[in-house]
Amino acid sequence: MKHGGDILTYKHLFDGEIIDFSSNINPLGPPSILKDKLIDGLNNLVIYPDIKYRLLKEEIAKYLGCSIDEVILGNGAVDIINTFSLMFNRVIVFKPCFSEYIDRPKILGKEVIVLETNKEFNVEEDLISRNVSSGDLVILGNPNNPTGKRIKANVVLKIYEMIEEKGAFLLLDEAFFEFCPADYDSIKLFSGRKNLCVIRAATKFFGLPGIRLGYAFTNCEISKTYNELSIPWNINTYAEIAGRCILSDTNYIIESREYIDSQRKFMFSKLKEIENIQIFDSDANFILIKLLEHDEDFVFNFLIKRGILIRKASSFEGLDKTYIRIAVKDHENNLKLLKYLKECLVWKA
Amino acid sequence: MKHGGDILTYKHLFDGEIIDFSSNINPLGPPSILKDKLIDGLNNLVIYPDIKYRLLKEEIAKYLGCSIDEVILGNGAVDIINTFSLMFNRVIVFKPCFSEYIDRPKILGKEVIVLETNKEFNVEEDLISRNVSSGDLVILGNPNNPTGKRIKANVVLKIYEMIEEKGAFLLLDEAFFEFCPADYDSIKLFSGRKNLCVIRAATKFFGLPGIRLGYAFTNCEISKTYNELSIPWNINTYAEIAGRCILSDTNYIIESREYIDSQRKFMFSKLKEIENIQIFDSDANFILIKLLEHDEDFVFNFLIKRGILIRKASSFEGLDKTYIRIAVKDHENNLKLLKYLKECLVWKA
Repeated sequence: MKHGGDILTYKHLFDGEIIDFSSNINPLGPPSILKDKLIDGLNNLVIYPDIKYRLLKEEIAKYLGCSIDEVILGNGAVDIINTFSLMFNRVIVFKPCFSEYIDRPKILGKEVIVLETNKEFNVEEDLISRNVSSGDLVILGNPNNPTGKRIKANVVLKIYEMIEEKGAFLLLDEAFFEFCPADYDSIKLFSGRKNLCVIRAATKFFGLPGIRLGYAFTNCEISKTYNELSIPWNINTYAEIAGRCILSDTNYIIESREYIDSQRKFMFSKLKEIENIQIFDSDANFILIKLLEHDEDFVFNFLIKRGILIRKASSFEGLDKTYIRIAVKDHENNLKLLKYLKECLVWKA
Repeated sequence: MKHGGDILTYKHLFDGEIIDFSSNINPLGPPSILKDKLIDGLNNLVIYPDIKYRLLKEEIAKYLGCSIDEVILGNGAVDIINTFSLMFNRVIVFKPCFSEYIDRPKILGKEVIVLETNKEFNVEEDLISRNVSSGDLVILGNPNNPTGKRIKANVVLKIYEMIEEKGAFLLLDEAFFEFCPADYDSIKLFSGRKNLCVIRAATKFFGLPGIRLGYAFTNCEISKTYNELSIPWNINTYAEIAGRCILSDTNYIIESREYIDSQRKFMFSKLKEIENIQIFDSDANFILIKLLEHDEDFVFNFLIKRGILIRKASSFEGLDKTYIRIAVKDHENNLKLLKYLKECLVWKA
């Protein structure tokens, strides 16, 4: 189980619709304005998307508060991670993290150094100063997947400065950015800094994993190299249409953030009532749980038989079979998960 | 002008809708059964596409007449070319050819050997025996872009055998396959052969450049390596939906092939009446033209002012500014192009 969302593999285990807590998608679904735009878009499939994606980049630049030349695009955030892996010879990551930070560079023949986080899964800065060399690519999830930890503004700034001083490059993966408390915006924080790329994506927050639209902010020079490495037309027409309309839907953005925030708080309060688990604080729309008396297979099997798919977390380097990850979904489904989780965890393994 | 279809760049030169003869898309548009399926598909955007694309591969395997394990997928055919470029250290191509055969491996740091074709743009087999070494990747367009030349069955078989004997690999790009006379099917021809991949695509024949769906036939071992190298979810939900419904639309396939065949014949007969050009035989839905008295800029500028976008061909290595490429479109638009082309070419430069 390397990725969440793989419903098809488990379909035969439950007679009915499976509720997917294994992938972390906005439970409110995509902005409602999108539907008509996509139906209109059916007429555009017969022409190539603009090879330079000028109008799409314009909208993203407006949303991110940067210039068009600083915007890069990917077939999902993972495409951006892949292309950056091509650009550097050595990659530094901290475990546990999204598996593709390790897998993509390895598959592309690059050296990958996997460093430890501390007991609370925080990145310790002195590990950066001791391990990062000139020309390295450091990849950090912010908030990190699967831990849900967001790095504080002063810490991420300090980390960046250490990386810059070494002559290395920071790839900050913020695919879950909009779910977080609006305490700081990395793109504003790092304005004018050169050795950095901040990834965002339509996938999670805008509820569009099927459409494959990742985008990022980086400096114009890196952006040029990136565009050369990217295959032509890497963004499909639907992703182009979606990107041009969803980002200006401010009401949807505020409503989603508030909804997830309230549901996350609700989940935490209820999870705390459950025995035999340790919960990790999260700024994202998912929660990492350590099982103190069972293992992931036991809980997974119990829940899938009741139509609930969760994420076993042992496939994350740095975690073992005592961890699971659950999404924060809509209230009704969250209640369902909590009910079954409670039932499951009072059982003795 | 590295690729066709870039309408946005030339929009300001004509007040009205530009007719695109620079990209080679089926003028009948996508199969009509697709529309409803795509509208239904709007509900699927909130879930990830199947990471293994099991149902899509099943349909493609049925269409190609091979097993599911022999099917690979790409974000357009160019994604497949890119991923194969990663797998080999040296690439051999014949000019003129689709620019990405040269650009993708170069950008990925691979050595590219560009060999000459003969006066009729045919591949001479002894060049293969003299230049190909063990471990090389040979890429051939069949039919080739921009020439429209399809390699005869016995010749392509002989070429493959020379490549196999050398311990090299043949990547046969058949993105325009369905437009060709149904004289032979490479996938049947090469059944059981190991050192080969045959690319097909939804882009051109099924009129779907916006949806980004390329697929190919190769042996199970290569297919495994390819799947590892590919980024997860490289095919978006719409491409998945399209791929699952268009390939079984036999009526559409027959009708499109017959229509293009008749229009290609019509275009040839009319182009022959125009002075000062040399036309190259084509098996595809595009025609390469050598200008005997003008250059590409002159003809391009004349036509764009009249709302017609053609492909200047000097960006193809091996061609100079005396070549243009035009698509075979629907009868009405073809007539329009012929009319203006006639007007243009009787002018003295």
